[in-house]
Amino acid sequence: MPAETITVNRDIDADRRDAAKKFREQRSRAGTLVVNLVSSPGAGKTSLLEATLAHWKQRWNVAVLVGDLATDRDAQRLRPFAPTEQLTTGGACHLPLPLVEQGFQRLPSCPLDFLFIENVGNLVCPASHDLGEHLRVVLVSTTEGDDKPGKYPKMFRTSDALVVTKLDLLPYVPFDVDCVVQDARKVQANLEIMTVSVTQQTGIAAWCAFLEKRREHMLQEMQQS
Amino acid sequence: MPAETITVNRDIDADRRDAAKKFREQRSRAGTLVVNLVSSPGAGKTSLLEATLAHWKQRWNVAVLVGDLATDRDAQRLRPFAPTEQLTTGGACHLPLPLVEQGFQRLPSCPLDFLFIENVGNLVCPASHDLGEHLRVVLVSTTEGDDKPGKYPKMFRTSDALVVTKLDLLPYVPFDVDCVVQDARKVQANLEIMTVSVTQQTGIAAWCAFLEKRREHMLQEMQQS
Repeated sequence: MPAETITVNRDIDADRRDAAKKFREQRSRAGTLVVNLVSSPGAGKTSLLEATLAHWKQRWNVAVLVGDLATDRDAQRLRPFAPTEQLTTGGACHLPLPLVEQGFQRLPSCPLDFLFIENVGNLVCPASHDLGEHLRVVLVSTTEGDDKPGKYPKMFRTSDALVVTKLDLLPYVPFDVDCVVQDARKVQANLEIMTVSVTQQTGIAAWCAFLEKRREHMLQEMQQS
Repeated sequence: MPAETITVNRDIDADRRDAAKKFREQRSRAGTLVVNLVSSPGAGKTSLLEATLAHWKQRWNVAVLVGDLATDRDAQRLRPFAPTEQLTTGGACHLPLPLVEQGFQRLPSCPLDFLFIENVGNLVCPASHDLGEHLRVVLVSTTEGDDKPGKYPKMFRTSDALVVTKLDLLPYVPFDVDCVVQDARKVQANLEIMTVSVTQQTGIAAWCAFLEKRREHMLQEMQQS
């Protein structure tokens, strides 16, 4: 007989779901809306965050967790705007929740209105990992082509909002906003869809208003529960 | 006592390496250069293949295996140019060798000079999977930013060539070709680097000449061995 009993076949997925739910609930109680930004590499996650933080001009308490395989290039860009922690995955293709939790612990311990998580640039793997966010936002740039939602369906199906970026490049690329909207809605009918150009500063105010409204909604839900 | 013995701890990685080596050697003997194209989603793998096949005007016998999570959109674009097989990963983030082998078996059984594998759009996971290619080519579009090699080092370290795409968009985006070259060479000093614009048809002849030279080199190596 074995000296100790080892439980196998433990439902790791259930453990992960519970941990993500707990992180989300804790942030809700603290009044922090957690936003997980996902996209292909170079779709403009860091640029959108720069524009968001510049638009708010410190009206809200914000912190950022930035995921990357290597380097802290994105974190360096964001530190002038808000407390930012680099999460280096060391080659892994997505941010896992434990890394997010560790990064969160390293942030200054002041109340936060918004916590942004900039995921690793990857339109596939981050779709399968709940980071305890309230809002998953997928970015697609006009230069990537308007056929992406159907080709990478899980990312769009699991997202709450789609932000089409680099609208300023529309005159130079074969991209139809109506097409990408139609394609995305086929995958996820309730997707909130916005368009922005960080270069031309269009759509930023609407995007920020959307985030504020979602936070307000979260606070109301907390009061009712 | 168990009725049969099951060998565990088998070195699956070694098995995979052997299978990839075997596939590569078989293609070498058949005179087929296998080219694995990798990049972020929307960097222009399919467009580069369209331009390549149009440039060659059936001078060479070519076939294409196209990987996608879902849909056969890219395969539809390429079928007018060459025998093309869709490989649907069903959500997986990279092409595995067995899927490539199955797709290869479905191709018309005629001699091939070039076999292109268009991988899933993902700058992370395909870096870890040898598909039996002779040449791994990573594409970076000018719209993605010139900071990508350092941020996604494994993909550049394991590639033989870098093709910078969408050169026509250079006037409209913050991208410095010298920067990306420098960043890429830091990761992989021997990387062959080319620039193309499919829209303006620049760099396509040089890219095709590079492929032809590499095939010639492979044939010479076969003769000497």
